[in-house]
Amino acid sequence: MKLAIDAMGGDHAPEAIVKGAVHAAQSIDNLHITLVGDEEQINPYLNGQENITILHTTEKITSEDEPVRAVRKKKQASMVLTAKEVKEGRADGCISAGNTGALMSAGLFVVGRMPGVDRPALSPTLPTQDGKGFLMLDVGANVDAKPDHLLQYAVIGSIYAENVRNISNPRVGLLNVGTEDGKGSELTKKAFQLMKEAPINFIGNVESRDLLDGVADVVVTDGFTGNVALKTIEGTALTMFSMIKQAFMSNFKTKIAAGLAKNDLRKLKSQLDYSEYGGAGLFGLAAPVIKAHGSSNERAVYNAIRQACQMIELDVTTTIATTLKEMKAKEDEQ
Amino acid sequence: MKLAIDAMGGDHAPEAIVKGAVHAAQSIDNLHITLVGDEEQINPYLNGQENITILHTTEKITSEDEPVRAVRKKKQASMVLTAKEVKEGRADGCISAGNTGALMSAGLFVVGRMPGVDRPALSPTLPTQDGKGFLMLDVGANVDAKPDHLLQYAVIGSIYAENVRNISNPRVGLLNVGTEDGKGSELTKKAFQLMKEAPINFIGNVESRDLLDGVADVVVTDGFTGNVALKTIEGTALTMFSMIKQAFMSNFKTKIAAGLAKNDLRKLKSQLDYSEYGGAGLFGLAAPVIKAHGSSNERAVYNAIRQACQMIELDVTTTIATTLKEMKAKEDEQ
Repeated sequence: MKLAIDAMGGDHAPEAIVKGAVHAAQSIDNLHITLVGDEEQINPYLNGQENITILHTTEKITSEDEPVRAVRKKKQASMVLTAKEVKEGRADGCISAGNTGALMSAGLFVVGRMPGVDRPALSPTLPTQDGKGFLMLDVGANVDAKPDHLLQYAVIGSIYAENVRNISNPRVGLLNVGTEDGKGSELTKKAFQLMKEAPINFIGNVESRDLLDGVADVVVTDGFTGNVALKTIEGTALTMFSMIKQAFMSNFKTKIAAGLAKNDLRKLKSQLDYSEYGGAGLFGLAAPVIKAHGSSNERAVYNAIRQACQMIELDVTTTIATTLKEMKAKEDEQ
Repeated sequence: MKLAIDAMGGDHAPEAIVKGAVHAAQSIDNLHITLVGDEEQINPYLNGQENITILHTTEKITSEDEPVRAVRKKKQASMVLTAKEVKEGRADGCISAGNTGALMSAGLFVVGRMPGVDRPALSPTLPTQDGKGFLMLDVGANVDAKPDHLLQYAVIGSIYAENVRNISNPRVGLLNVGTEDGKGSELTKKAFQLMKEAPINFIGNVESRDLLDGVADVVVTDGFTGNVALKTIEGTALTMFSMIKQAFMSNFKTKIAAGLAKNDLRKLKSQLDYSEYGGAGLFGLAAPVIKAHGSSNERAVYNAIRQACQMIELDVTTTIATTLKEMKAKEDEQ
């Protein structure tokens, strides 16, 4: 397996990226990693691994860059060269913790779509109370989705959950404003009908208040709604942690309580930390492209690498493309 | 002021409804309340207030009823008769804690829209960390909104926040997937342009991760996205409370901590309790219609009554209708 990794993207780049890569290069068999970025900044963190090479460049895309323009203009940026490694067959997949929009553009314009997918989807695995997590797609790659796009997301998500996350017969739900059949917007009503006929374990509509309870293994939604839901989870959790902190600092008694419960509350925070599940897949591209969280530490980078390796090893991309092709053939027959 | 109240809607009806009404009848000047429902069940909680009368009926709409059908078929249901009091001029506004969808239907079909509003919006006031709260509209009345609808929501919400919530020059934000101008779906891009020209303090796009931090006083969105955002806040908060509870029950040390911090953590829960802000307005109807939360207790019912009284006293409905009419005239001029 050959992976290209953007060493310069993310809040803790290049240190966390390179360290995560070194860890992966030491522990995952048959892996070769190309780190793309400034060799002067990368070298200090390398340990002389033979299965890591550097592709040197000093240009990079920042989080402030306008995504589409950045990918078009900064042709030597580490992220663009990373995607190019995949396009030109020197890597089987790639990872970046940089600008999300730019990675979506690089995925679309450099790596390219897989046949049968109209629009790629961005798909993180989010935490649930029971620790199993669920896949949500799309969370923002395609904000004006059509029913057909949601159908494709359902199939892609189901295959990913089954193969990479080892969930047999994963439950696929459609995010909606009510659980009853026939609920929702024009988009979700039409998508519901299509998903009913698809080769997936479709459990119908699910509501956002049940997401963290693990109501489904795969939650399908349009990129606008998914983005709002994801950021609402993040915002509500952060606000609550901040309020809990305030509550514990309010008087002498609560400060003692805080001391006693500190470790267990910290555990709670890590339960909600979704970097444990790897990065967000950019699904529907010709090869695995993983967006690691911007704040990724060494461990999160390592998890994203493992995730990309699994996708490559199990050839998830081909399985998805074949399934979509068979669905299309069946549809044309009718 | 004359208010009609559905005494039979909500989890704690009729007790909580009647007690809240009695409290209001005793403490709010110039108020007359008509309680609609089963007099045998209502009477035990009445104290002989002269300014409360009962409109007797035994039929009611349940939470399981299909909304539109229930309103059409159950012509003697307490909720339908409550709305009819408004329609026929015997009440200036009405309140129900019953089936939300049915109240939206009763509002639309019985009370009727105000001129200039295409689609009514359901608008709760949600909690923020600083305790000020923000108005969100729409959270589910209109799941296939057009840009013009969002413009109307912005104007309605701004007038309500200024008049009833006493926020001068309220900040109106458009819920979107990024804060930059030009971000978003076709719907939000078009709505952004319209809102820029409206007679409101439009602060641009806001993201859902900043909602509970009070990023805007009025947050405008389509009913699908708003419903998902609202239920995501609820679900995430509930999950976190449940996880905190588990963390505190995990060992001897944390149990002691729980005992010490109990009261302060309970305060935290009430900080997130939005019944303190009254019910959700069904805005854009010919008269104030308030949806009290299904789990409303006496205090929440009382708050919803105060809210309806303020809307009536300040004649918010006329202000909204006049403003929308002026906007329309100005637009036609151009």
